[in-house]
Amino acid sequence: MSEQEIHPEIVEQRVYDLSRIGQVGETGVTRTVYSPEWVAAQDQLESWMQTAGLETRRDAVGNLWGVAKGTEPGPSIVSGSHVDSQAPGGRFDGALGIIAALTATEALLKQHGQPLRTIEVVSLCEEEGSRFSTAGFWGSRAVLGLISPEDLATTISFDGETIGDVMRGIGLDPTRIPAAKRDDIDTFIELHIEQGPVLELEQLPVGIVTAITGYRHYVVEVSGWANHAGAFPMKYRRDPMAAAAEMISGVIQNAIDMGQPAVTTVGRLAIEPNFPAIIPERVTFMIDARHPDPALREQLYEQHEKLIYEIADRRRLNVDLHINKDLAPRPCDPGIVDLLDQAATDLCIPHIRMTSGAVHDTQRFSQIARTAMIFVQSKDGRSHTPEEYTSTEHATLGIQVLAEALRRLAY
Amino acid sequence: MSEQEIHPEIVEQRVYDLSRIGQVGETGVTRTVYSPEWVAAQDQLESWMQTAGLETRRDAVGNLWGVAKGTEPGPSIVSGSHVDSQAPGGRFDGALGIIAALTATEALLKQHGQPLRTIEVVSLCEEEGSRFSTAGFWGSRAVLGLISPEDLATTISFDGETIGDVMRGIGLDPTRIPAAKRDDIDTFIELHIEQGPVLELEQLPVGIVTAITGYRHYVVEVSGWANHAGAFPMKYRRDPMAAAAEMISGVIQNAIDMGQPAVTTVGRLAIEPNFPAIIPERVTFMIDARHPDPALREQLYEQHEKLIYEIADRRRLNVDLHINKDLAPRPCDPGIVDLLDQAATDLCIPHIRMTSGAVHDTQRFSQIARTAMIFVQSKDGRSHTPEEYTSTEHATLGIQVLAEALRRLAY
Repeated sequence: MSEQEIHPEIVEQRVYDLSRIGQVGETGVTRTVYSPEWVAAQDQLESWMQTAGLETRRDAVGNLWGVAKGTEPGPSIVSGSHVDSQAPGGRFDGALGIIAALTATEALLKQHGQPLRTIEVVSLCEEEGSRFSTAGFWGSRAVLGLISPEDLATTISFDGETIGDVMRGIGLDPTRIPAAKRDDIDTFIELHIEQGPVLELEQLPVGIVTAITGYRHYVVEVSGWANHAGAFPMKYRRDPMAAAAEMISGVIQNAIDMGQPAVTTVGRLAIEPNFPAIIPERVTFMIDARHPDPALREQLYEQHEKLIYEIADRRRLNVDLHINKDLAPRPCDPGIVDLLDQAATDLCIPHIRMTSGAVHDTQRFSQIARTAMIFVQSKDGRSHTPEEYTSTEHATLGIQVLAEALRRLAY
Repeated sequence: MSEQEIHPEIVEQRVYDLSRIGQVGETGVTRTVYSPEWVAAQDQLESWMQTAGLETRRDAVGNLWGVAKGTEPGPSIVSGSHVDSQAPGGRFDGALGIIAALTATEALLKQHGQPLRTIEVVSLCEEEGSRFSTAGFWGSRAVLGLISPEDLATTISFDGETIGDVMRGIGLDPTRIPAAKRDDIDTFIELHIEQGPVLELEQLPVGIVTAITGYRHYVVEVSGWANHAGAFPMKYRRDPMAAAAEMISGVIQNAIDMGQPAVTTVGRLAIEPNFPAIIPERVTFMIDARHPDPALREQLYEQHEKLIYEIADRRRLNVDLHINKDLAPRPCDPGIVDLLDQAATDLCIPHIRMTSGAVHDTQRFSQIARTAMIFVQSKDGRSHTPEEYTSTEHATLGIQVLAEALRRLAY
């Protein structure tokens, strides 16, 4: 067993320095893809990579790669995350995963010299969809060859620009995007903040992710009879709000009854006509429902659909239920999960295996490589906000696990 | 027993003619207070009143009065309703009550000559609040002396005009409003469409209103923890939408359990931040809850409040509950209710006693006079829409009850 030296003060300094680029308030960051702040952040990361002894290159969408060439040929061991942020987001979401990969690789090179197998650190250009709502995972999609020429014109920013124009504006040539595709990645490991409360509540610094959730968004439109709130007796009503309330309680209870890690959320709702003294004509709400296990996920969705149709039938209301988004769950590679788990055990770092309820670049990479993730504790489970926080101590413990795993894979 | 002759074809013609003033589409009407259509409608009604032998006058807010002077002195027997409409509303809400009073009084004068007691027909200027949201009951408020000089500047139309300016624009002098106050009304009877489904479902043309509901609007603001819809396990959530759904189901069930005529409606709701994949921070909704019985009304409100606080406590959420509007219920005068009931019975017109779940000018008049109402059937219970409909047959039966009651009171 060999413990690489990871210096907490360097981790903390790098998180701080990167957060100054696009700083909002004291702890917030707005660094949307291809913005001047994004350009400056990639430049900063490239400079750190070069100092660490990595050979750097940018691909056609602006992903930044730092390569430590192996003495033997073969596909690469890759680690990293995304450099873009929510608007505003915090200092850790994405950024910490890049700093982790860089710091771990730097320590390995310093202590063990050139690896047998090539290690690459990647700063992916885009994951959040915070500038172009449909650009989410732009960086990993390019690596997988999943961006089509039409996407350049149809991916529109909140300010109305096309992503093709914005790329050209900072000197990237969108016609070269197909060249960003990779088929030589053996393993992808991403360190990320948990974005949930589990590790904090379990008082553990580190989680080893065994699967990344699949999610589905339903749009549910319930229609009844708009009528006078005073003159229409309860027994004659066809009230879509009464039905929606029962449906919302029911789908939330379905997720509770199925048990962790099933989750179901209703975060969006609209009433028509939305007057206090009128029984609504229509209530439309969205259901976000997730489970990392494919079979249990289907079971959860069947329960939700059955419940909604049963309530609508019983209350004699029309219901229109359709699926707006759907992403399949992705199990992580059992071998890589075991490797991370064993590395943490050998380093005496307290940890649990857990699933990820949020989606990640790793989900995409799982289509071309063996993947797994390391989670570190998020204070109060907060993310996508300037209040997001992970202690340097926990970040450093996560990076130690990553470095040890990379050593076992590449040396 | 004496049956006044009420001609259905005249009733139908008057409803039709009045509906052409401010016509919207085939059956809709937009006739907001003090608009050109409103001026034309009052002129039309004044002309009909004069032809019927009534002496007409306008008061300071533009209420139109048609007087059949009695041979004996003393306070007046008054019937009528409001001439303004929703925007758009239908042909019957308000208008039918004025046409009913006019047509009944005309028949009495024709068949029985001058009354002993003075009968007055009134076309009240405003009830709906459809041009100035806070002007509701402007006509009856003036008769009761409830308009203050400040109201002229603070009552603002949806187009930003003050009601004082709008009144001056059509030649009314707002400084004269105190002169509109009356203290010489003995009885006020209003015929109105039901605006609910009860009479249609009971297959009855006429209802005798025993009380007018009291209502209260609560604003309920439930606050929890905004968090990621995927990464936050169910058991750690403080989800205000889950709580709001339970509260909404609960208050609706309270009204059902209490039984008719208790009603409770949630017609307005807002979520923050209203994103599909974020557990909301805050859900704000309004409760409209009504009961015509003062003691049962209090009991309903106590149950609602207890339920809301219990759910918020159990789910560890903050709740802010405040009352936005409150109007006390008004029982009708038992003597006038008996008189109307007996008149309908004697005329062999099928009817029931019922309460009004909607508010009416009669509620205001009950503070200075003996009051009661006659309801006629509304098709599908619809109102405040161009689809509102009452058959000429039912309208005529209601007017026969009104005419017979006026005869018994004034001759």
